[in-house]
Amino acid sequence: MIGIDPGLTRCGVGVVDVAPDRSARLVHVGVVRSAPDARIEKRLQTIAAGIRAALEEFMPDVLAVERVFAQHNRNTVMGTAQASGIALLLAAEHGIPADTHTPTEVKAAITGYGAADKLQVQTMVARILRLDELPTPADAADALALALCHAWRGPSAAAAAPAGALTPAQRAWADAERGARR
Amino acid sequence: MIGIDPGLTRCGVGVVDVAPDRSARLVHVGVVRSAPDARIEKRLQTIAAGIRAALEEFMPDVLAVERVFAQHNRNTVMGTAQASGIALLLAAEHGIPADTHTPTEVKAAITGYGAADKLQVQTMVARILRLDELPTPADAADALALALCHAWRGPSAAAAAPAGALTPAQRAWADAERGARR
Repeated sequence: MIGIDPGLTRCGVGVVDVAPDRSARLVHVGVVRSAPDARIEKRLQTIAAGIRAALEEFMPDVLAVERVFAQHNRNTVMGTAQASGIALLLAAEHGIPADTHTPTEVKAAITGYGAADKLQVQTMVARILRLDELPTPADAADALALALCHAWRGPSAAAAAPAGALTPAQRAWADAERGARR
Repeated sequence: MIGIDPGLTRCGVGVVDVAPDRSARLVHVGVVRSAPDARIEKRLQTIAAGIRAALEEFMPDVLAVERVFAQHNRNTVMGTAQASGIALLLAAEHGIPADTHTPTEVKAAITGYGAADKLQVQTMVARILRLDELPTPADAADALALALCHAWRGPSAAAAAPAGALTPAQRAWADAERGARR
């Protein structure tokens, strides 16, 4: 399971292994950077090389990337959309399915709260993966959160959890709280 | 010189040869299509395969792609941005420079009028390339117009033509009018 937080200046890449019991293990986390003063086609080539290297090294079975919306942060949204398109293309070219999740879906899956801030996401990602420190920068944590979200939620068109059951986020939160009290 | 009018459902691909005297010859025009009901990563793979095939067959020395803006047509703009990112990536991976031009720049370069409609662009592209019929669909004509625009204007940061001189579009229009009167 690989998650991509798309971007031109910083593109987060996170790889996790998720067991059938939904427990998760960190495999890799990193950020691919491209120089803001480089030509756009070179920047996209750098981002593609970084994603491709992770696909070849870790051979994930599915790729999840953040869904980009036109109305967000106009200055950078086109570069973000282009980077997301490249992540999706590379998934197809490596023969694995890809899916997109909105930031709200990711935050809700990870923290139980769709409007969670970056620190809350980083904190929960660290607890879920039993990391000694918060994953930084935020793009790296977001990439891990995307991968976890996809592992727990499944394809974005999948039905929601049955009413009354703990959501994966609620269960993870409960698990993490137990872990923190040990 | 290859021009790409980016899109997921229809992606225009146009290749022209432009002589030092700015006269132009049609080399190839086509549209790469992907099925609207296919998965996004498969659609982008189909678009990439079509652009890559044109790059390998015609070996253009530069690629021009339409610059996409966030505020245009929200429903499709993200797919358009993703396709444009893939065109830029493929240029870099084929070792050729890429550049973007806005629709207004392209219309102004081709017709002399930045708010020209699709028929005016198609008509001028047909005249410039001495085609017997209008290039269709509009995406194909737009791809040719992008290639011609880039050939005439040069890189998008280049200085404008000196005041008083005929712009390339004005010269082309004058040439085309002479041609049409023969």
